[in-house]
Amino acid sequence: MMKILAAIDSFKGSMTSETANQCVKNALPNHEVTSFLIADGGEGTVDAFVSALDGEIITESITGVNGEAYLGRWGWIKSEKTAVIEVAEGAGLIQADKETLHPDNHTSYGVGEQITQALDKGAQKIILGLGGSATVDGGSGLLQALGVVFKNDKNEVLSKLPVKLSQIHSIDTSGMDKRVHDVNWQIASDVTNPLLGEQGAVHVFGEQKGLSNQEFATYDSDMKQYANLVSNETGKDERFTKGAGAAGGIGFAVLSFFPCTFWSGLTLLAEKGDLEAIVKEVDLVITGEGKFDDQSLSGKVPVGISRLAKKYSIPTILFAGKIDSDRTAIQEENLFALIPIVDAPMTLNEAMKNGPKLLTRAIKRSMKLIHLIETI
Amino acid sequence: MMKILAAIDSFKGSMTSETANQCVKNALPNHEVTSFLIADGGEGTVDAFVSALDGEIITESITGVNGEAYLGRWGWIKSEKTAVIEVAEGAGLIQADKETLHPDNHTSYGVGEQITQALDKGAQKIILGLGGSATVDGGSGLLQALGVVFKNDKNEVLSKLPVKLSQIHSIDTSGMDKRVHDVNWQIASDVTNPLLGEQGAVHVFGEQKGLSNQEFATYDSDMKQYANLVSNETGKDERFTKGAGAAGGIGFAVLSFFPCTFWSGLTLLAEKGDLEAIVKEVDLVITGEGKFDDQSLSGKVPVGISRLAKKYSIPTILFAGKIDSDRTAIQEENLFALIPIVDAPMTLNEAMKNGPKLLTRAIKRSMKLIHLIETI
Repeated sequence: MMKILAAIDSFKGSMTSETANQCVKNALPNHEVTSFLIADGGEGTVDAFVSALDGEIITESITGVNGEAYLGRWGWIKSEKTAVIEVAEGAGLIQADKETLHPDNHTSYGVGEQITQALDKGAQKIILGLGGSATVDGGSGLLQALGVVFKNDKNEVLSKLPVKLSQIHSIDTSGMDKRVHDVNWQIASDVTNPLLGEQGAVHVFGEQKGLSNQEFATYDSDMKQYANLVSNETGKDERFTKGAGAAGGIGFAVLSFFPCTFWSGLTLLAEKGDLEAIVKEVDLVITGEGKFDDQSLSGKVPVGISRLAKKYSIPTILFAGKIDSDRTAIQEENLFALIPIVDAPMTLNEAMKNGPKLLTRAIKRSMKLIHLIETI
Repeated sequence: MMKILAAIDSFKGSMTSETANQCVKNALPNHEVTSFLIADGGEGTVDAFVSALDGEIITESITGVNGEAYLGRWGWIKSEKTAVIEVAEGAGLIQADKETLHPDNHTSYGVGEQITQALDKGAQKIILGLGGSATVDGGSGLLQALGVVFKNDKNEVLSKLPVKLSQIHSIDTSGMDKRVHDVNWQIASDVTNPLLGEQGAVHVFGEQKGLSNQEFATYDSDMKQYANLVSNETGKDERFTKGAGAAGGIGFAVLSFFPCTFWSGLTLLAEKGDLEAIVKEVDLVITGEGKFDDQSLSGKVPVGISRLAKKYSIPTILFAGKIDSDRTAIQEENLFALIPIVDAPMTLNEAMKNGPKLLTRAIKRSMKLIHLIETI
């Protein structure tokens, strides 16, 4: 019987972190498996914090990303008066309609409403996960929901949809919910892009949100005009700050208006959930992700976990749908073994469809090998 | 440092047994790896016996499968006056021209010539591997080369090509090389089909040799007429004997005319190469094959090896390109673990093209896992 920590990232499009960790439990019924959910600030962030901190899920109606009513989930850790909100839920690609996928049709208003809900609940700390948004509204919707008023050049109040940053002529923050200044904001985000330009919110993330390449320049220029207005209003300029480009510019909005600190999703989760204390008690760490490549080595979640395990000389095995990296770097990262989950020639689609089955089998196979030496 | 036996079957179309075993050596430079080549009577049989028995390769000109001159290889184990001949070499699909692939264009004459070469060399034992032939000539070409004369209904001698069994009207064995009766024949064949009918040489193996379904009935009927003539000549009927249908009926010819015993390829190899003595000295057996399925459990080579290892409680790991079987049976066969070699979604073609690279990586990964427990 081994003590095992399962801390597998989501296999995007195939399985969540929770499902993947469950595969470890299913594969190894005779071992003591502790599940630690992983999130990078995007989809699954609420679930991961709620699981790590023993919180609860609150479900309340909000304005969905398309402007229609949506039942939104956020996390509440009562003992710490902490709310966990993820943009992927309140303004996420998962609720966007593929047929009308375009930032013009999307608002982050619902995220602001969830913040209000959390404040009403008495939140003293808000963990806000940035990632997986369908919006490129610079966080304007979020700010509207919190009482900020945007007006056009005719001094008319702009409604939450359609979101047209180019129409914003002035900003009035006098009606903004004062409570946002007293809350301890912790932003979970693995995106470090600035707001504008080639590395910014529009150019890097626009396409997956439905922007055509032809629209990039205009959208980026509108965002710049918006940034100018915000800077004039706040007296500081956050457009170049790391993470300002996260979640279609929500990063910029929170940096500009809230007293906040940015954290990598894992760092924050690890700290809150006391991951280190869990790691040092186990014999083996099992992590994983859909695709392991050179990006993984430059700081994606599974390698972060292996680095933590390395401190205590706990071996880490990483399972991946696809492995595409050189081996030297891997050893430095304390990845004891890198195991692919596919077990036959198959298409990416087949592999993704059968993710949990393939992962479960790969874990079983690997544990057999681990125990081989005991038999000889 | 572990003592490891590498005994991997060929991954058909991807790598030979020799290449596969070499992958084990390449993957595990710090372990003591003994390579035991595997063959089932088909392609690679000569190499496997020469390797196991420390023999040499003889290269001499023969009549190729198409009737043109061909440099044929056979094995010679001088110390035991034993020749090893494989039909896959003397009359094999590997030398057949894909454009003209049809049994009408192919003869097993070259195999008979190799037998003569072996007898001239002083062979007292001949190991003949059946499998991988491009012929469906009932072994008539082989017999011609050894001095048997076939005549048509006008009493004209039939030449070695074209091979038309329907034209054979009489057989004259008076000129047959007498030495074939004094040799100890051991036939290596994993094919157990009879000569004729639905399970026979034509119906089961005809298609891969270029016969169309429409030709099956005629070819089978011609083969039956040939079998009648042979039976009349020899006074015994081997058409229903297991293995008579091997190598396009060469099985029938050797059963009819030579004092021979049939062996599975592995059994013979294992006995000659003293595989059991090797197995019981190692810590781990590594075997493998292209596709592991229920057929594998019903007696293909890797499972045969795992059964041998089981006698001495040596764990066996099997590597496969594709795994398609249920797990219960596997445990009974002492397969400690069944490891797929693919490491990402890919096509069968890609997997086959990269066989050695994928196998080497899979072995490295597995050995890492095997040693994990020593680190904790």
